[in-house]
Amino acid sequence: MKIIRSPGAMTAWSEGLRRERVRIGLVPTMGALHEGHRALIRAARLRCDALVVSIFVNPTQFGPREDLTKYPRSISRDRALCKREGVDVCFEPSVQAMYPKGFQTTVNLPAIARRWEGEVRSHHFSGVATVVSKLFGMVRPQIALFGQKDFQQSVLVHQLVKDLNLGVTVIVRSTVRERDGLAMSSRNVYLTPDDRIRAVTLYRSLRAGAEAIRNGVSDGKSVQAMMRQVIKAEPALTIDYLAVCNPYTLEPLSTVTPRVVLLGAVRLGPVRLIDNLLVTVPRQRS
Amino acid sequence: MKIIRSPGAMTAWSEGLRRERVRIGLVPTMGALHEGHRALIRAARLRCDALVVSIFVNPTQFGPREDLTKYPRSISRDRALCKREGVDVCFEPSVQAMYPKGFQTTVNLPAIARRWEGEVRSHHFSGVATVVSKLFGMVRPQIALFGQKDFQQSVLVHQLVKDLNLGVTVIVRSTVRERDGLAMSSRNVYLTPDDRIRAVTLYRSLRAGAEAIRNGVSDGKSVQAMMRQVIKAEPALTIDYLAVCNPYTLEPLSTVTPRVVLLGAVRLGPVRLIDNLLVTVPRQRS
Repeated sequence: MKIIRSPGAMTAWSEGLRRERVRIGLVPTMGALHEGHRALIRAARLRCDALVVSIFVNPTQFGPREDLTKYPRSISRDRALCKREGVDVCFEPSVQAMYPKGFQTTVNLPAIARRWEGEVRSHHFSGVATVVSKLFGMVRPQIALFGQKDFQQSVLVHQLVKDLNLGVTVIVRSTVRERDGLAMSSRNVYLTPDDRIRAVTLYRSLRAGAEAIRNGVSDGKSVQAMMRQVIKAEPALTIDYLAVCNPYTLEPLSTVTPRVVLLGAVRLGPVRLIDNLLVTVPRQRS
Repeated sequence: MKIIRSPGAMTAWSEGLRRERVRIGLVPTMGALHEGHRALIRAARLRCDALVVSIFVNPTQFGPREDLTKYPRSISRDRALCKREGVDVCFEPSVQAMYPKGFQTTVNLPAIARRWEGEVRSHHFSGVATVVSKLFGMVRPQIALFGQKDFQQSVLVHQLVKDLNLGVTVIVRSTVRERDGLAMSSRNVYLTPDDRIRAVTLYRSLRAGAEAIRNGVSDGKSVQAMMRQVIKAEPALTIDYLAVCNPYTLEPLSTVTPRVVLLGAVRLGPVRLIDNLLVTVPRQRS
């Protein structure tokens, strides 16, 4: 496995292979790789000839009071995992190489970015859209894989690729969960043992919403209220949002449609958890 | 010469050629082609194997009170010119194809975009940066040519390509002028015969500034005052700005450096004219 740090060397590697019609896949990560990343890497490995995993903790997607400096880093373990999974290149650009002096371009998707995660984290999605544009420019992949856990991010990347004609096929792979159902996340290491047990309540809440929809509840507000109830039963949790949304636009739905996404974000002490479930409503037989 | 309207067909054409290592050049235009465009096309023709000229009057770079609807259009003449100059593809996407329902991405370069043209035309450069990103995505050129007349635009595109790692070589070709010195522009057709004669005053003003610098005037404000004086002598003209700037950042200079750009924008009745001159200061011998 090759480790590439320079963006120029990364592009040269890719361009050389593209000319030989090699299909390049990219899994963009911020490192601290876990089973969710492994699943993405394995899914990517099956779909491309040459596989790049980028590891870059992107400062521009963190807010000023967020956890940039203490974000978990485990580069040797990450590299070992990549190597075991047959990754061809670990691309590890420096902050300086990504954002040299004079850098100023931002990419914005206001309709998607202002909602949900964007409401609490106002510059987050501009940071994500910009760094994804840059990584696509540097790596020139034909396909890129993202985890469903960051559902809003995956919607944003789909729209970005369409809007800027980036020519990358975006594949979203379903969330990998702990045995109790908690969505895997690099930030789960922040949880105290007690909070780790409580954390699964978010998933339970989304499950309750999905169950209600499958049982015929079609009013968005009612589904939301049911999800809310589950969270309220655990006093340590504070709700940021719980929503029933159109999975393509992320607009909240007053009435359930055949395909919806349930989005949730809660706080548990200093830790913020997000999760989501896609629900397909079975057609009513008459 | 091929006429391509669909962005998908454009990308397919380019991708096919790129695999054969054909070097693709792009000259992005808004049509109403004049001698300035012809010079760009000829310069491009010498530097690439396959040449695309895009013709797209981009609505997002016009302000609400600007001339979008009356912007000059001459598609048959434009195509004839392209054909004569050996262009391979006239790429003529529709507004609908460029900005389909749900489109929302904007690309911004705030430090460059807020100055000069951006001060009077607040969304102009965001429109330019976004459409250039899209055209580069659709056409996938190795090189793209822009005219020096829109100097600030060329600085913006250079920075955009660098910041988003677009992998396109940007070439700027010097301004083509009428016999009296007026910079060629599609908007010159708006000028009345009397104003056409007065219009050259902008160029004369920039020339006076360049002359002053070459004669040793090193104070930015003094150079600016000299340019201003030339414009003031023609009462029909109103100054939007006249500036002595760093040609890479467009920051105004209080003291002249070895390489400066003189930027000017004036109004003449309903018509707005811009122009610029690059000045290289000869080293003083001691």
